[in-house]
Amino acid sequence: MRILLLLLSILLEVDCLRVLRDPVTLSFSNQRNRDFKNQFSISDSPYQWSTEWLANVPVDHFAFANNDTFKLRYFINTKSYEEGGPIFFYTGNEGALEGFALNTGFMWDIAPEFKAAVVFAEHRYYGETWPYPKSLSYNDTRYLGYLSSEQALADFALLIDHLKQNRIPGAANSPVIVFGGSYGGMLSAWMRIKYPHIVHGAIAASAPVFWFFDSGVKEDVYDEIVTRAFVTEGCNFKAIEKAWVGLDNLAQTEEGRAYLNSLFKLEKTRQLQTPGDVNIIKNCVHDVFDTMAMVNYPYESNFMAPLPGWPVAAACKSLSVVAKSDKEAAEGLHAAVNLYYNYTGKAEILCTDPDAALGENNLWPYQACTEMVMPICSSGPPNDFFWNTCPFTAAGWLEECKQLYVSFILHDAHFMVPHAALCPTLQNRASTLLRFYQENSIIHVKIIDQSIFPCSWVVSRKLEIKNVRT
Amino acid sequence: MRILLLLLSILLEVDCLRVLRDPVTLSFSNQRNRDFKNQFSISDSPYQWSTEWLANVPVDHFAFANNDTFKLRYFINTKSYEEGGPIFFYTGNEGALEGFALNTGFMWDIAPEFKAAVVFAEHRYYGETWPYPKSLSYNDTRYLGYLSSEQALADFALLIDHLKQNRIPGAANSPVIVFGGSYGGMLSAWMRIKYPHIVHGAIAASAPVFWFFDSGVKEDVYDEIVTRAFVTEGCNFKAIEKAWVGLDNLAQTEEGRAYLNSLFKLEKTRQLQTPGDVNIIKNCVHDVFDTMAMVNYPYESNFMAPLPGWPVAAACKSLSVVAKSDKEAAEGLHAAVNLYYNYTGKAEILCTDPDAALGENNLWPYQACTEMVMPICSSGPPNDFFWNTCPFTAAGWLEECKQLYVSFILHDAHFMVPHAALCPTLQNRASTLLRFYQENSIIHVKIIDQSIFPCSWVVSRKLEIKNVRT
Repeated sequence: MRILLLLLSILLEVDCLRVLRDPVTLSFSNQRNRDFKNQFSISDSPYQWSTEWLANVPVDHFAFANNDTFKLRYFINTKSYEEGGPIFFYTGNEGALEGFALNTGFMWDIAPEFKAAVVFAEHRYYGETWPYPKSLSYNDTRYLGYLSSEQALADFALLIDHLKQNRIPGAANSPVIVFGGSYGGMLSAWMRIKYPHIVHGAIAASAPVFWFFDSGVKEDVYDEIVTRAFVTEGCNFKAIEKAWVGLDNLAQTEEGRAYLNSLFKLEKTRQLQTPGDVNIIKNCVHDVFDTMAMVNYPYESNFMAPLPGWPVAAACKSLSVVAKSDKEAAEGLHAAVNLYYNYTGKAEILCTDPDAALGENNLWPYQACTEMVMPICSSGPPNDFFWNTCPFTAAGWLEECKQLYVSFILHDAHFMVPHAALCPTLQNRASTLLRFYQENSIIHVKIIDQSIFPCSWVVSRKLEIKNVRT
Repeated sequence: MRILLLLLSILLEVDCLRVLRDPVTLSFSNQRNRDFKNQFSISDSPYQWSTEWLANVPVDHFAFANNDTFKLRYFINTKSYEEGGPIFFYTGNEGALEGFALNTGFMWDIAPEFKAAVVFAEHRYYGETWPYPKSLSYNDTRYLGYLSSEQALADFALLIDHLKQNRIPGAANSPVIVFGGSYGGMLSAWMRIKYPHIVHGAIAASAPVFWFFDSGVKEDVYDEIVTRAFVTEGCNFKAIEKAWVGLDNLAQTEEGRAYLNSLFKLEKTRQLQTPGDVNIIKNCVHDVFDTMAMVNYPYESNFMAPLPGWPVAAACKSLSVVAKSDKEAAEGLHAAVNLYYNYTGKAEILCTDPDAALGENNLWPYQACTEMVMPICSSGPPNDFFWNTCPFTAAGWLEECKQLYVSFILHDAHFMVPHAALCPTLQNRASTLLRFYQENSIIHVKIIDQSIFPCSWVVSRKLEIKNVRT
């Protein structure tokens, strides 16, 4: 996602485009993250599964104009399952399924106690679940147009039916508890609402279910939380606020730009040529801050990038005092970027390149442009230590989306139709129907694995287990 | 609908096809019913409205492959509305909207007390709400394929949003109560479930929400209720059971067939030629029984046909004793048919012809074949006084649907995909979420107009009003 934004800032020189990111969901946008089996060390994981496929899934669940079908990938483990036990079902996110199966230890950990079957379902158009070949899908909404949350929920409903009727003996009457984090958590919550006869409970971790227009969520709250997380961990608000000025100053001169190109190890095709190009670096740093807050786990992790425990605190070591020079300010910011991109010490370039081809990176932006229009921007001090990109408007968003997609979606320029009225913003929903969790700064934390949790979280997990039981 | 079945019995000589009817929802399948303005005497009605249209409704709410839009018709009356009052919203059925607006007096009657706006929304592909021209739609699922309950619900959600945001001043925070009878009641119930943030309450009258596979509804219960209604009103079970034999006997000879053709005033192209053709009449009578039970209102009415008050009792006058001859038996059945088709005394043919063209009659069967697969059959005595057409199976249903649609749906023969897993059968739904009403034998009775209600029903209506209030 950040790659995409950098590309856009090159093309358009408008940095407000960074809001096209999905700051609370996963993006495996870096080339180094492409090899999931390597990244997540599946063979070493204590969590093991069979990979299976549900055939004959309708591309379109809600009309009969297109009767194509496809195969949906899912992972399953019935080792702990006993007849009548529950099905723990992960509603897959906007990414390949492996990362979620390996990082949702909560389901694995409690399955034996509940004698539960564990299933992870892949979201259509991500990972290996493609209704149409990628080459077609990336060229035309006639093929990509079936990427939507409603269709994905219907996929999951069909899969659950298949599991209960055919795949898991004795499960016909098993209760189904859905789990999900972030966008996957939104899907879990919506599964419980939209398919109450199929799903009996939902654990939605870090799921911004309310993050739509007119639902009372502040558009600048995300960076407010990011800022708080960094300041709490030792970053100096003023240091960061002033560091942007340092970058701007350096970018004014050829010598300064050469320094930044070298410091941030920008690849050749994307090095700063003009003062305005400094947005490439500013957006990169902003993106690193936003992402690092999400994965500020207390232990060494490898969810969105290899990182040490408490990475925010580590990044803040170089940002605890106001720099004495522009270069010193730039170095402080670079330290954070380098930690995120280069914890292993092997990266030759940072703020990694976008793919030459328009790869899977663009799928979440597509969803963000067509249905998941989640208002987000930075308003700058005192709310956050970034710069002002507010207000977030539907018209502005639509304009950005058009610029983003006109180049590769050929079929119809009018596909961006935010369906705000159809989004389940849930304002009037009885609170007993489902439970929400919105973490301050750490994503998926309620459902990741148990062994490495500090005590305080284990307590809340016990409460969670009790909820699953009731 | 009955017309369609008669056509089929000619073509296929299988009378089990009668189950393609929608026995609990409305069909305006007779030519005499086509002129709604005349039929329902709109100009004389105490209920008056403005006809309006919602533009730019997406043909497909759940994908971006097809970005066509259409205009949705609705009726609105805000005379009683005061700012902040509720919106009473009728979720239109499988037929032109006029009949529902004129026969849902409950909404009109209580609107002044609640200071409510009254809105009736037309279901896509019925009445005057056509996403594509009929000529295209009847030839190809690429155009007809967007006829589905899910799409219709999304239409209504958009319209409610439009009403609240733009059309009705001061209604932004107005509660919305949806009303519907029969299929419209199913839609109301599903609106409350699927769009809980938009719809605050639902009154679903005579809505067979549970009438799907595996939901515990007996497949032969409908004709059991019909039989009970007729026997209660004076019909003799044995008389009707034996009358079918009388028809069969008469149909064996040319003379007997001539007698039946004349008695039942069958039009020339559909007169009995062989003994098997007797199914034309048997299905016609069966259909009249099933329909008349639904409209067994205690007052003269004109909902599905012009009829006297208590029409079932009227029909049973000729069916109270076992006939002494085949002809007498036939005459007893004819009396019921004649009452239904010819209460006005002007009909020249009964068991009316199907349209030459495949008209709107075929839309509900299309829905019944694609998503509304509601198990229904007759098992004969002692359950009912018809003949055995059970069991109802998905495979048999699919076969019938294929025979029905292969002749005019050219695009794809595989469009019949009952989505049982996606239907909200609601087995495990909390009862507080919505309220169900399944009348024994009278349809829409809870929501029709107040002035002509006998006391016992007014009592239950008062309870209903209380529910609307809370």
